[in-house]
Amino acid sequence: MSSAKRQKTAKDGVPYELVYWPGIPGRGEHIRLLLEEAGAAYTDKALQPDEEGGGAKAVLALIDPSHMGDDVGNPPILAPPVLRHRDLVLSQTPNILMYLAPRLGLAPSADDDDVDGIYRLNSLVLTALDGLSNEVHDCHHPIAVSLYYEDQKEEALRRSQDYVKNRLPKFLGYFERVLKSKASGEGPWLYGGRLTYADLVLFHCVDGLKFMFTKAMEAMEKEYKGVFELYEAVKARPKIKEYLASDRRQKFSEGIYRHYDELDITE
Amino acid sequence: MSSAKRQKTAKDGVPYELVYWPGIPGRGEHIRLLLEEAGAAYTDKALQPDEEGGGAKAVLALIDPSHMGDDVGNPPILAPPVLRHRDLVLSQTPNILMYLAPRLGLAPSADDDDVDGIYRLNSLVLTALDGLSNEVHDCHHPIAVSLYYEDQKEEALRRSQDYVKNRLPKFLGYFERVLKSKASGEGPWLYGGRLTYADLVLFHCVDGLKFMFTKAMEAMEKEYKGVFELYEAVKARPKIKEYLASDRRQKFSEGIYRHYDELDITE
Repeated sequence: MSSAKRQKTAKDGVPYELVYWPGIPGRGEHIRLLLEEAGAAYTDKALQPDEEGGGAKAVLALIDPSHMGDDVGNPPILAPPVLRHRDLVLSQTPNILMYLAPRLGLAPSADDDDVDGIYRLNSLVLTALDGLSNEVHDCHHPIAVSLYYEDQKEEALRRSQDYVKNRLPKFLGYFERVLKSKASGEGPWLYGGRLTYADLVLFHCVDGLKFMFTKAMEAMEKEYKGVFELYEAVKARPKIKEYLASDRRQKFSEGIYRHYDELDITE
Repeated sequence: MSSAKRQKTAKDGVPYELVYWPGIPGRGEHIRLLLEEAGAAYTDKALQPDEEGGGAKAVLALIDPSHMGDDVGNPPILAPPVLRHRDLVLSQTPNILMYLAPRLGLAPSADDDDVDGIYRLNSLVLTALDGLSNEVHDCHHPIAVSLYYEDQKEEALRRSQDYVKNRLPKFLGYFERVLKSKASGEGPWLYGGRLTYADLVLFHCVDGLKFMFTKAMEAMEKEYKGVFELYEAVKARPKIKEYLASDRRQKFSEGIYRHYDELDITE
């Protein structure tokens, strides 16, 4: 069975479909990690060839400026990742994650005692994505996404220096504090004493940061022990481990997390 | 009755409390607009003096690095805005908005036929905040938030030029397309033929952009008619109109949207 068509049984029987750029983990990776940890049935269009309507072609068809949404209530989409499920066509990473997590058992659901827990988790997830993903992208593209990195190298170095000195410790320190808080409960997890999707999001951010700012992250391991323990705990989960070793996992390259030797700084 | 203590009757009888920096509309403004449009009971701590536990003091107490959250499940907070409601302490603007909107009748709720409409709205809101708020802040602070604008003026001009030329038309064009889509329904609104919180968010983004990039926005009025019609339609709503004229409304100054003559460019 090809990895793109890999289907398992989802709780409600309707498989998910992820549409994202091929060739990078990117923002789509957060979505993949939830689906993989939960063993959900899904199709990853990034792994299908263009000729079969997958790959970049699937993305371009959805975000084309002539695309006007559909007749069942979905507005047009600006950018991937996109999740299709039943009649829904959703965009925006934290939005897709928030839709998926309660359905996949990775966040309290509306039937749960902790009915508002999802909002606490969403707050953690948005903070991780802001500080450990979006800001990281701006480190190599501080002036414009429309320009090459080579056209903003000097500014990228200045921004990266500020990031490594001020922003990275601020955000890692925050999550270390969350891990020590009463709300995190027992164990290595961020919230409620059990694995949630916020842990998977933080895992991928740390994974990307280790690729991009290898030296700075190494220097921070001792100070933010809880964050790195969570990282290892997610990595060791059987389904995640199997996924990371599989050909469904895209390698870091020219996405959000990029390794440039000249930006791999410690101060 | 002082504006800070202004109380009206909320549907569930428990008033909301907003904690945010005083002196700027900032990200807190999106939250205020929902509460004002709905006529909800709320306290705005930014309008209370420091001596009474309001103002910057209220923010600093919550985000202090020694603050470890609480005993009823709330993790520590990294940054304002913060919403307090019952036992909940929530951060992150789009998260707070998503919690509030169904409760305030500004988004479909779980009892609604359109049970997943909130995710479609959240996608629109996150896109507006990404492109018309967060990216705007980076226009005057492209290198580091820890540096003064004066220390990154040249880079700010380059980034603003790219923003006005490429990013602003991209995002305004996207929302123009959403307004023309079937999913928007009839009338000036973004989704489902009725006012939702996504309209209030887009209104404030346009309001801020008109303050910061006055000339560029004026030049774009003809091309993105729907967006500017929505802006006027929100502005004319009786409760919003009353709010904007009141002393509860903070003036633009040194927040996300700033007016620098040298950045008020058209290309």
